[in-house]
Amino acid sequence: MENVSVKSLYQSQTHDQEVEISLTGWLKTLRSSKKISFLELNDGSFLKNVQVIALKNLENYDEITKMPINTTVKVTGHVVDTPDAKQPFEVKATSVTVEGQSDSDYPLQKKSHSFEYLRSIAHLRPRTNTFYSVFKIRSLASFAIHQFFQEHNFVYVNTPIITSNDTEGAGEMFRVTTLDMNNLPKDDQGKVNDSEDFFKKPANLTVSGQLNGEAFALAFQNIYTFGPAFRAENSHTARHASEFWMVEPEMAFADLDANIEVAEAMLKYVVNYLLDHAKEELEFLNENIDETLLERLKTTSEEPFARVTYTAAIDLLQKADTEFKYPVSWGIDLQTEHERYLSEEIFNRPVFVTDYPKDLKAFYMRANEDGKTVAAVDMLVPGIGELIGGSQREERYDVLEEKIKDFGLDSTEYEWYLELRKYGETMHSGFGVGFERLLMYVTGMENIRDVIPFPRTPGNAEF
Amino acid sequence: MENVSVKSLYQSQTHDQEVEISLTGWLKTLRSSKKISFLELNDGSFLKNVQVIALKNLENYDEITKMPINTTVKVTGHVVDTPDAKQPFEVKATSVTVEGQSDSDYPLQKKSHSFEYLRSIAHLRPRTNTFYSVFKIRSLASFAIHQFFQEHNFVYVNTPIITSNDTEGAGEMFRVTTLDMNNLPKDDQGKVNDSEDFFKKPANLTVSGQLNGEAFALAFQNIYTFGPAFRAENSHTARHASEFWMVEPEMAFADLDANIEVAEAMLKYVVNYLLDHAKEELEFLNENIDETLLERLKTTSEEPFARVTYTAAIDLLQKADTEFKYPVSWGIDLQTEHERYLSEEIFNRPVFVTDYPKDLKAFYMRANEDGKTVAAVDMLVPGIGELIGGSQREERYDVLEEKIKDFGLDSTEYEWYLELRKYGETMHSGFGVGFERLLMYVTGMENIRDVIPFPRTPGNAEF
Repeated sequence: MENVSVKSLYQSQTHDQEVEISLTGWLKTLRSSKKISFLELNDGSFLKNVQVIALKNLENYDEITKMPINTTVKVTGHVVDTPDAKQPFEVKATSVTVEGQSDSDYPLQKKSHSFEYLRSIAHLRPRTNTFYSVFKIRSLASFAIHQFFQEHNFVYVNTPIITSNDTEGAGEMFRVTTLDMNNLPKDDQGKVNDSEDFFKKPANLTVSGQLNGEAFALAFQNIYTFGPAFRAENSHTARHASEFWMVEPEMAFADLDANIEVAEAMLKYVVNYLLDHAKEELEFLNENIDETLLERLKTTSEEPFARVTYTAAIDLLQKADTEFKYPVSWGIDLQTEHERYLSEEIFNRPVFVTDYPKDLKAFYMRANEDGKTVAAVDMLVPGIGELIGGSQREERYDVLEEKIKDFGLDSTEYEWYLELRKYGETMHSGFGVGFERLLMYVTGMENIRDVIPFPRTPGNAEF
Repeated sequence: MENVSVKSLYQSQTHDQEVEISLTGWLKTLRSSKKISFLELNDGSFLKNVQVIALKNLENYDEITKMPINTTVKVTGHVVDTPDAKQPFEVKATSVTVEGQSDSDYPLQKKSHSFEYLRSIAHLRPRTNTFYSVFKIRSLASFAIHQFFQEHNFVYVNTPIITSNDTEGAGEMFRVTTLDMNNLPKDDQGKVNDSEDFFKKPANLTVSGQLNGEAFALAFQNIYTFGPAFRAENSHTARHASEFWMVEPEMAFADLDANIEVAEAMLKYVVNYLLDHAKEELEFLNENIDETLLERLKTTSEEPFARVTYTAAIDLLQKADTEFKYPVSWGIDLQTEHERYLSEEIFNRPVFVTDYPKDLKAFYMRANEDGKTVAAVDMLVPGIGELIGGSQREERYDVLEEKIKDFGLDSTEYEWYLELRKYGETMHSGFGVGFERLLMYVTGMENIRDVIPFPRTPGNAEF
């Protein structure tokens, strides 16, 4: 007897009904009459279920008709092709054995549930078709990103999660401590004595691995990080989570144009990989969640992305025949409404906006010759707004040192970062991708909590 | 003119010396006389340097002879094959341009440095051959792990970093907080009011993603996590870091034997991938760090791993003709000296030890019929000791509930974990790999701080 998976059954074009197979999985639906029962089984290997036919001549037929949903079942039988039916094949059971019980109050009965309710049972929601699809795509998109960079000889770097740096010089950060909060050690002034903490000074969760990534790009030329990052912002929007994953490539000898080329190639690679490897999941989501999904992915794959400078973008927005909540003028930080208008209405595809006013961007971005702007780039995409943010980095020691001072940062904290310039001043560029935003773009899900297995937001660290 | 990388030059079997090429990289060594200079350049794309010949007819020859190490240099010239020389080819320069300065006090001059000193310049050490090799192997081993699991239809899951769980029920954990430590909110009793913290209760950094991984295995059958984990242990050994990466596969419908098979296949896959993709780096490490490295990897790749029960292992250790620091008797936790003796002296290859006494292992491991042991497995490897730890999980609701009580854990915290059994009791197994230990095994590095880009240990969160 051959043990088979649901996936292998769907991958075979035809089936030999003489061969006896066995299949273990979970009961997803059950329709029974006195003479015949239809079981849908799934073993997690594939989105679609397998239909199993059990007839009343099976000795435990009564037990079969009473199995609760999600009972673990082992079926032996014969696979019969059914070219005229909805499903391409079915299994005629010679035995159906209960391998593990399930309670009859299983919360995921066939009726559909709100996403909000499903978040409260995050341990069970991957068993639904929607979340099965989303988290399968999350896995495949992760791998596509790794494969893209490895194929291009980028070195994967695990930058530290616990850090005493603040890359953005502005983030709201989580403190990491082992001090007993009910019995804090104090110094002479009555302040907390941080030198008694685990790292002998205050430490935080990282907001970005970029600065560390730069150190490695200046050894390996091309590197990328892919790991968790954290923001202790008290925001309750559908686009913000306290814990999320970022991809941060960094490239030596690369200017802003090279940076843009890699960002476009990467997104296209991920989308093509999903179109090839997540066909059933994308079709399911296109049918049930976002009917524009497949078309959007095809456009992303096939059309070259647009490019526009910030200054030209402001001009386009000012001329636009629409009323924005936030008025548009040179110098403003683009809001999501502006970003979406640019990518959805004006360009109707992903667009790179470059050369932002220096006051809007971080200290490490390279100053342009005009004295007003920096060599920054954001990629804006339909439905989301900003998906990627990057820049050419300031590689000139003196300019960078001045910038750190201007931004009011403590230059002793950035000594090692300055040394990267001191010992081999090198043009380099990089960008950061909010991985969950990318997932929202490629799944059509509208809330970031629904693309993270166990989301963390203010007040929520359950499971 | 063709822009080339060091890697592409090494990958070409022969070179056309008529074609003019350009190459940008960092100056690694320089030997100059009045008439001729030998430059070794590296652009980070490959471990080995390219030798460049500059003759005094170049107009900036004087400048060339004075370039400090790690100056960023652009060379144009012609590649000439040199089959009789140490290096297979060299570049005869038609121009050498300084693209970026480097200071003459660059700390990585040619002489070799202690690993301890290099840890203090973690931002520069990947520029050395040893750390270039180690971190390149880290990247390739990461990818091999992803590729192994993706090829076997495992779904990658990002389990949460911030959590209110404690998987091991025993870990020393880092607290994550946004409370102002100098102005803590207090309750009526004068205790810290945790409900005012960011997550409205105490939250910690994860010690393992296993429990969350199980939830996904019971939807997708086969899953793996690969992410950071944390231990706030105040240990200062060469084997412990406060922040490290773990790989945690979890498989439904899998018993302990299936678990062992996957662990062995995974390690062999990673080793074979490195033998194929990190040839230069492994040869460098074998020559300079650990002369047993290549032989160890070949054995790992070719020989089947050994298996022994804990009870039989104790027997073997008791009969061993050696004096252990920690005496051996049934019921003891195996110490590193015992683990290494088993894998190095008795089996001389990786060995799986199974069925440990239940009191030594975590609450979630499946009770064996003998009432004394659990279906646990550790993989011990030469030079390291424990590399992988896993088990078949307790899938029986009642047994697990009892176990949680016996271990003195708060069962309300594990309600969702128990529900995974309530709704579809399913045999399942999994294991955890300490990724840095694996890296020590495949690089020969002896200190965990030297396989982590920016290591975190008690008192150290620099960079």
